[in-house]
Amino acid sequence: MNRVCEMTGAEFPLFAFSHCRDVVAAVSKAGGFGVLGATRFSPDQLEEELAWIDAHVDGAPYGVDVLVPEVVDPRVRELADNKSRAAMIDPSYQGFVNSVLGEYGIAPEADLPILRERMGITPENGLALMEVAFRHPIRLIANALGIAPPAMIEEGKQRGVPVSALVGAKEHAIRQAEAGVDIIVAQGTEAGGHCGEVSTLVLIPEVVRELARAGHDIPVLAAGGIMTGGQMAGMMAAGAQGAWTGSIWLATPEAETSDAFREKMVAARSRDTVRSRSRTGKPARQLGTPWHAAWDAPEGPGTLPMPLMGMVSEPAFARIEREAAAGNAGARELVSYFVGQGVGLVEQVRSSRQVVQDFREEFIDAVSGLMAAMDTQ
Amino acid sequence: MNRVCEMTGAEFPLFAFSHCRDVVAAVSKAGGFGVLGATRFSPDQLEEELAWIDAHVDGAPYGVDVLVPEVVDPRVRELADNKSRAAMIDPSYQGFVNSVLGEYGIAPEADLPILRERMGITPENGLALMEVAFRHPIRLIANALGIAPPAMIEEGKQRGVPVSALVGAKEHAIRQAEAGVDIIVAQGTEAGGHCGEVSTLVLIPEVVRELARAGHDIPVLAAGGIMTGGQMAGMMAAGAQGAWTGSIWLATPEAETSDAFREKMVAARSRDTVRSRSRTGKPARQLGTPWHAAWDAPEGPGTLPMPLMGMVSEPAFARIEREAAAGNAGARELVSYFVGQGVGLVEQVRSSRQVVQDFREEFIDAVSGLMAAMDTQ
Repeated sequence: MNRVCEMTGAEFPLFAFSHCRDVVAAVSKAGGFGVLGATRFSPDQLEEELAWIDAHVDGAPYGVDVLVPEVVDPRVRELADNKSRAAMIDPSYQGFVNSVLGEYGIAPEADLPILRERMGITPENGLALMEVAFRHPIRLIANALGIAPPAMIEEGKQRGVPVSALVGAKEHAIRQAEAGVDIIVAQGTEAGGHCGEVSTLVLIPEVVRELARAGHDIPVLAAGGIMTGGQMAGMMAAGAQGAWTGSIWLATPEAETSDAFREKMVAARSRDTVRSRSRTGKPARQLGTPWHAAWDAPEGPGTLPMPLMGMVSEPAFARIEREAAAGNAGARELVSYFVGQGVGLVEQVRSSRQVVQDFREEFIDAVSGLMAAMDTQ
Repeated sequence: MNRVCEMTGAEFPLFAFSHCRDVVAAVSKAGGFGVLGATRFSPDQLEEELAWIDAHVDGAPYGVDVLVPEVVDPRVRELADNKSRAAMIDPSYQGFVNSVLGEYGIAPEADLPILRERMGITPENGLALMEVAFRHPIRLIANALGIAPPAMIEEGKQRGVPVSALVGAKEHAIRQAEAGVDIIVAQGTEAGGHCGEVSTLVLIPEVVRELARAGHDIPVLAAGGIMTGGQMAGMMAAGAQGAWTGSIWLATPEAETSDAFREKMVAARSRDTVRSRSRTGKPARQLGTPWHAAWDAPEGPGTLPMPLMGMVSEPAFARIEREAAAGNAGARELVSYFVGQGVGLVEQVRSSRQVVQDFREEFIDAVSGLMAAMDTQ
């Protein structure tokens, strides 16, 4: 269809970011391009996931997304591992977590169950995951936040694997291009997860123009808010070469999301998300709940830097999910996850394969509609 | 081209909102559809403006946008006129204005120069302006904020003039449809002026679907961030029947904007706008300056409700413009106006006629590009 398809082997330039291998394989087999989000895995776990994909993807192209943070907060940079980092967290945060959860019928825990064992989002884990990814027949490696590290660029070039990176502002796109990135994913403020302030509709032409002006001939994928083939065609009309999507796959039966969260997705309006630091430590869009209201309130304790905030929040969200699954109605109110404003367009749970097919049909309908309008002008 | 063109007489469904009659006439004559923003005029002034347009538009269709506030803050609702309303403003606000302006080299004024004479954004002025508009051969009347009043709907139906209204959420679109509005303008958070929180890209399909589901067969125009024909085609791919634009016309030589502001527009990035209550009292996007930082800071005095905030802010912004025009560099830093994130796409000042022509060419290029991509699939 275009250059980004040639670079990656995708038949239809619909890139599906998912933490779930089943989604990745299903999308790639249906002609899209699955990208496994690897940040939550240990290197051994990622090895297992990718071996599964290799065995189930029927030779279709797929990619991996890792997160090697470029900037680490000075408060955590010096420390060698998460055990030392966890020791920095003031015990008052446990009290605050307990009070928020307590208000919704979840009993307090004596110890702050921070993530001492898992590495989480750290530079060392990001690089280890990258090494695992390069041992598999990936057709794309993505860096989720900040500038792609030189090791990724170099190894990508050696192995002929395009490197992509997410940006939320035109200046960042130029920095990525100068670092040697092959594909820019320009992500608008409506996106789930880490996001900037500028909308996808404005960001796409702004990034495309800025790259061209600086002499970088690099394709741009549009991310943020895209849940339909009509929106995908729309962002390609505005200058993108394809769509990078995330939230839509959370509403598939293959996804890692709970029933409780998928039900909330179907019910949610676009206005029900918040851009908050209260889960990872950086501004990330997610379904808004009283958790976010409590942490973001002026009288709250303030949020911690990455990765400390996640060490505090993730065990709490795991607990919330367990309690909600066990029928605790209060806990259900707190169920949340990273999701973009496009959640307002989710009307039902569909299989990943069906979502790709729907995108392809909607894309054709949208282009046909535009052609008809132009013909009668 | 489509139904919204049939309803309004527009040749190309590019709707141009402007406070400047020259822009309105130039756009309509070039095949787009100019809409005069009338809120700043007295009824007599509006009469004069529309007579000028009638004499210069060569019979091309145009419209008028008024603002009849649906909800008036209880603190100001009871008062009969702006003189009584102005009396409510605590003198400490004058001190704050003086301190902000003083930091940028603008000498303090002894009296708070509030807008005692001009009516501003009030229900009584909105309705009076509407009556003036209906005495002219308008092809559209728009209500800028809240539900279109029954008087507007009834008179529009009697005279065969379609009524449009701006919405920032799907629930508001349904309320407008139930009130009898003929065309919905769905405006995303990236828009200049009063705006909601959801991006244009998400809002368009959400509003289109919700109207269809509720059985309302009403065309939707996309507003917010649209500065190019490629973006316009994109929003039409996503379900809109045309584009409603505002910021792009501020960068034309015909516009009411100052040289200082137009220079700032060309220099600005998309991230340089803020959504702030500090000019009108309601969240409105504008070019961010130290004025906005000061009012929106936690230690600031807080903002006043509409229309009181405008009575305080507008004389200050008028003063800023005068000082900037006189060469005061500090004042230049404070120069601001309502503008959307699309300001990052403004690269030069172009005539209104040229902007319409560029939109038409970009539109055709975008659709041709999509067709080519689809053909090679």
